[in-house]
Amino acid sequence: MKIAIIVPITGLTEEDMEHRRKLAEATVQRGTKVEFLKVGKGPPSIESRYEEELAAEGILQKVKEAERRGDDAVIIWCMGDPALGAARELVRIPVIGPGETAMMLAHTLAGKFSVITPLGGMMMQIEEQVRKIGLSDSLASVHALGIRVLELRRDMNKTKRLVVEASREAMEKHGAAAVVLHCLGMGGLAREVQEVVGIPVIDPATTSLKFAEMLVELGLSQSKATYPKPPKETD
Amino acid sequence: MKIAIIVPITGLTEEDMEHRRKLAEATVQRGTKVEFLKVGKGPPSIESRYEEELAAEGILQKVKEAERRGDDAVIIWCMGDPALGAARELVRIPVIGPGETAMMLAHTLAGKFSVITPLGGMMMQIEEQVRKIGLSDSLASVHALGIRVLELRRDMNKTKRLVVEASREAMEKHGAAAVVLHCLGMGGLAREVQEVVGIPVIDPATTSLKFAEMLVELGLSQSKATYPKPPKETD
Amino acid sequence: MKIAIIVPITGLTEEDMEHRRKLAEATVQRGTKVEFLKVGKGPPSIESRYEEELAAEGILQKVKEAERRGDDAVIIWCMGDPALGAARELVRIPVIGPGETAMMLAHTLAGKFSVITPLGGMMMQIEEQVRKIGLSDSLASVHALGIRVLELRRDMNKTKRLVVEASREAMEKHGAAAVVLHCLGMGGLAREVQEVVGIPVIDPATTSLKFAEMLVELGLSQSKATYPKPPKETD
Amino acid sequence: MKIAIIVPITGLTEEDMEHRRKLAEATVQRGTKVEFLKVGKGPPSIESRYEEELAAEGILQKVKEAERRGDDAVIIWCMGDPALGAARELVRIPVIGPGETAMMLAHTLAGKFSVITPLGGMMMQIEEQVRKIGLSDSLASVHALGIRVLELRRDMNKTKRLVVEASREAMEKHGAAAVVLHCLGMGGLAREVQEVVGIPVIDPATTSLKFAEMLVELGLSQSKATYPKPPKETD
Amino acid sequence: MKIAIIVPITGLTEEDMEHRRKLAEATVQRGTKVEFLKVGKGPPSIESRYEEELAAEGILQKVKEAERRGDDAVIIWCMGDPALGAARELVRIPVIGPGETAMMLAHTLAGKFSVITPLGGMMMQIEEQVRKIGLSDSLASVHALGIRVLELRRDMNKTKRLVVEASREAMEKHGAAAVVLHCLGMGGLAREVQEVVGIPVIDPATTSLKFAEMLVELGLSQSKATYPKPPKETD
Amino acid sequence: MKIAIIVPITGLTEEDMEHRRKLAEATVQRGTKVEFLKVGKGPPSIESRYEEELAAEGILQKVKEAERRGDDAVIIWCMGDPALGAARELVRIPVIGPGETAMMLAHTLAGKFSVITPLGGMMMQIEEQVRKIGLSDSLASVHALGIRVLELRRDMNKTKRLVVEASREAMEKHGAAAVVLHCLGMGGLAREVQEVVGIPVIDPATTSLKFAEMLVELGLSQSKATYPKPPKETD
Repeated sequence: MKIAIIVPITGLTEEDMEHRRKLAEATVQRGTKVEFLKVGKGPPSIESRYEEELAAEGILQKVKEAERRGDDAVIIWCMGDPALGAARELVRIPVIGPGETAMMLAHTLAGKFSVITPLGGMMMQIEEQVRKIGLSDSLASVHALGIRVLELRRDMNKTKRLVVEASREAMEKHGAAAVVLHCLGMGGLAREVQEVVGIPVIDPATTSLKFAEMLVELGLSQSKATYPKPPKETD
Repeated sequence: MKIAIIVPITGLTEEDMEHRRKLAEATVQRGTKVEFLKVGKGPPSIESRYEEELAAEGILQKVKEAERRGDDAVIIWCMGDPALGAARELVRIPVIGPGETAMMLAHTLAGKFSVITPLGGMMMQIEEQVRKIGLSDSLASVHALGIRVLELRRDMNKTKRLVVEASREAMEKHGAAAVVLHCLGMGGLAREVQEVVGIPVIDPATTSLKFAEMLVELGLSQSKATYPKPPKETD
Repeated sequence: MKIAIIVPITGLTEEDMEHRRKLAEATVQRGTKVEFLKVGKGPPSIESRYEEELAAEGILQKVKEAERRGDDAVIIWCMGDPALGAARELVRIPVIGPGETAMMLAHTLAGKFSVITPLGGMMMQIEEQVRKIGLSDSLASVHALGIRVLELRRDMNKTKRLVVEASREAMEKHGAAAVVLHCLGMGGLAREVQEVVGIPVIDPATTSLKFAEMLVELGLSQSKATYPKPPKETD
Repeated sequence: MKIAIIVPITGLTEEDMEHRRKLAEATVQRGTKVEFLKVGKGPPSIESRYEEELAAEGILQKVKEAERRGDDAVIIWCMGDPALGAARELVRIPVIGPGETAMMLAHTLAGKFSVITPLGGMMMQIEEQVRKIGLSDSLASVHALGIRVLELRRDMNKTKRLVVEASREAMEKHGAAAVVLHCLGMGGLAREVQEVVGIPVIDPATTSLKFAEMLVELGLSQSKATYPKPPKETD
Repeated sequence: MKIAIIVPITGLTEEDMEHRRKLAEATVQRGTKVEFLKVGKGPPSIESRYEEELAAEGILQKVKEAERRGDDAVIIWCMGDPALGAARELVRIPVIGPGETAMMLAHTLAGKFSVITPLGGMMMQIEEQVRKIGLSDSLASVHALGIRVLELRRDMNKTKRLVVEASREAMEKHGAAAVVLHCLGMGGLAREVQEVVGIPVIDPATTSLKFAEMLVELGLSQSKATYPKPPKETD
Repeated sequence: MKIAIIVPITGLTEEDMEHRRKLAEATVQRGTKVEFLKVGKGPPSIESRYEEELAAEGILQKVKEAERRGDDAVIIWCMGDPALGAARELVRIPVIGPGETAMMLAHTLAGKFSVITPLGGMMMQIEEQVRKIGLSDSLASVHALGIRVLELRRDMNKTKRLVVEASREAMEKHGAAAVVLHCLGMGGLAREVQEVVGIPVIDPATTSLKFAEMLVELGLSQSKATYPKPPKETD
């Protein structure tokens, strides 16, 4: 099986990319090949609806490319799920949004979850995303760490400490029974935090990879009744 | 007052544009100047989520341009409200989405409304849009005319007849008490249809213009708590 | 265009009325005439569901009178929107409820709003009103100033200070991204408060006037499918 | 125990009143006294929101009177529950709305119910009422018999036949598992219809009486946090 | 009339049982016979979903037995309403769940209520129950006393004090306008607490008994469209 | 990895069991062992809430047994998810409900889905289940085949034909964009039906197995804040 991971931002260091590659390879089963596709054009990082739009065109090109070359599934490697609906229209192979996947999982395991995001400016945008996914009734709260996306991995001890603090506040003040990390840059942190706080902590990176594998093996993909081929597109 | 209307598609004939210009000028009050800004790059028409994404970058450039040159409000002239959230982040002047505006009005006047769209392929996308706007409980049904967007104005008698039929089905089978025309290409039809069917028929073209004027005169705009300036943007 | 404003309470001083008249006249466009119609009978002020009922009959008489004499729209000048549904049944001209109008606008501009009301006793009644309007999911919180309606304008500096404090609490503790002033007696305060707190503050007085103008110019009114003529009424 | 039944309409024949009295007396337990209080002023029947408002003042006077003279509970004998919230503010004794009571019961017994109303013009008004009560998700459909309120009892065989037909349509086409009769004029029909259609048919007349008895015996009444005393009222 | 009360737990002392018997007998009207049926097998108390399942089989046997011997209604004497749906399938006589009944009543009297439960571990389970009943929008909060179920009656002064404290927190911090006691072991406390806190306090014991009497007298029971006879069961 | 599949019914033929075993083994990845655990006591099949309760105790014993002997995950092999919440309290290993899993997947892939169930009597029960899972807004309709559970596999051509017919009705009349097969007895049919109808058809058997594998590999399980250990249970 081949899974394409589309990286929609251009500001990652080679070290960051290397970390993600290793995490991805350690996650999938034997026999699954993972390839990271970097967009030709896109914002350095995505911290607003505006940057989601800037990233869209690059994402959509790579989605088509992935299908053309025979990949079995595509992941749009950003928690806001930019261009997810459009991508699902363009291809028949499953397109996975890590945000949607992580929240569905949190809802299933816990019934009530909180979201932890790097920057405060995205809180209302995340509430919108949860409403779009149809899970507003399960959202306990949204918490911001006050760190820029590209700085998350500078001091991982600090990041982890802040995630633990936010998780505890979510549990104690808002009744959260699970936590969703709302940035792929926090990938790899979930298990450690989970051990400390004792409730499920959902890592969007590993979760979306396993979800992609599951869909491929089940022969399932997005509904073409919901996401029909755009009428001007040819096969 | 100056209102910029951003036309996000490139497939309109000069005649179509002329029709829209006249409709717009006949709608605004004396003293309001309306200017149509055509995007440099964009799809011929928007009939899918994919084409909404293709249109986004052109829209956002024009939104910034409008603010820079001193316009008082901006309308994104497409019922799917493409790039609406991103545009609202970029500027301080009000950005109006005709889809959102028309549906809020239908909800206020009638409590329960149906949407009439040119093509069947957009029905689930419209349900998503209504959910995003927060009005799912007021949506009676979505109806498709089976006409391509750029052909709506070819035979206006046929288009009108189909809109009347769809409106009646919405009323009789689904309990709709108002109808929203989900394409700017149907602009100008609403009053005639309304006279025939006897319930409010919301024209997104005229509605969004008057709504823009209202916001400007009230000194109101989108909330910067909901749509903060993207952190990498400078003023 | 002629807009009738029905004042459903009898306790306003001549000075209060004068203030409202000036505000209204300063709000409408040139060519719009605004006339205040005082009910013959009604409570001194409306601070409960009971007083809403006491006001209803006087309101409905004036609504009919306004249509009979040729007014183009009617505003029921009270945030609780007393007798709004009944009034919409009686006439064909649009009947505007400032409460409904202000909340729809707050929802559109911000997605999440709080309401500021003079007296604590009306908090549950306001939650009921928001549910009736269909916007419960957007309500962040309701705040009371602890001032009686007829005393709001005694010390406008104090009132303004309390509104600012309540707005800040709404933003910081409840995530509000806009504020609705739930009393026509706070009319005129919104712009000043908005400058201080930095999020949209919706003034029901000016908002409902501009909304009325918009409906008239669009040729729109309440749906007669939703608000049919009462069967015993004759035209 | 003494229960006051407020009849908010003036168009009932003496025979109608006699029928209701007998039904009420046959419903309550030994030891409960039921008294019908007719409003001094009110519409002949209530078939619109407008007539609900016309009835309000008369209802509220009788509600106060009932408490003053020592009644233990008050029922507002109309399915639209006119002036219910206001009445609950005015007194400490429980005020029962037959519409609310019947729908809560239908929801509890069946999870999904339909409403049968005399006239088609009230269908949207009933949907509003159900939303206000908070049970929209349980409403399967609303059906109209096409009979005026004051004619319901002219030909009871016809009325019963139409109710059975509407109930069957509700069950077969809309999945209703219970039916609410939305007019006190259908009082007494429920048991017969229930035997024919096989699902619970809720009679607002008997239901509200037993509900009133239950509240009195439990020492329960409306919450004064929700329905506070109007501030200008004295005890 | 004969009402069977099924006690699904085996850990009650004879003194506890005696208290409940007296409370029940003091609650019903003259002519109603109440009989407590203890399950042959079941958990000592119910403090988890697991113990609800352990109790189910014993409950269902007793429900059938009650109908067979001619009882008019059955109450499952536990706030979690264990096996309620299954029991309603098995018999034609009404089966009452104290949890559902108490919450419907709180919703009707107050619009917004809080739940007070002995143990913290049941808080999410109660939220699930409220969602199942369809009243999530009315739930203000859930509070735990930190007492085990079988110890509630050891020190009734302490229990009462804790209930008053929790009620006040529910009112002041969460806007509750009524309180539901979520354990039959708190039966009898409600009136005293209500006098102190001033909002309705719903006692599941007395409430479910009066509700059962009401249903029997109205000739109403659960809908067989919702709760059909299990296909392998014979009459 | 070892996954335990608990078969909660006793009426399956050896042939049926063999079919399920083969399907399961063909579904999991190399290295995953699947073992079917049959309950010692339980109903022949589950076609009602009553039989769900009868199955519960047997299920819970097997769930404990599975954890004790070192299994990594447990699936309760019935679409109604009987005893799911209780089972999740008892153990730390993930407990999967095929109903919940299949519906979450349908929601993610399509936004709007229908459910196909063998018997008409379970339609309201399924609506309850969907509400409990929190996906009511995504449910287009429920369809019954009119076949008893144990007869589903007698004539698989007939069963398949009926499933195709129901799927088409769901799509055309109710706007379904995916279909969930609501019985493990339909396991294996999904792919064939999907090819015919062209929208995702979710097979609960294969879906729940892959979902179980995914959770185990992600190190995720149900939240102990939502499903705490029952206080009387010891580790």
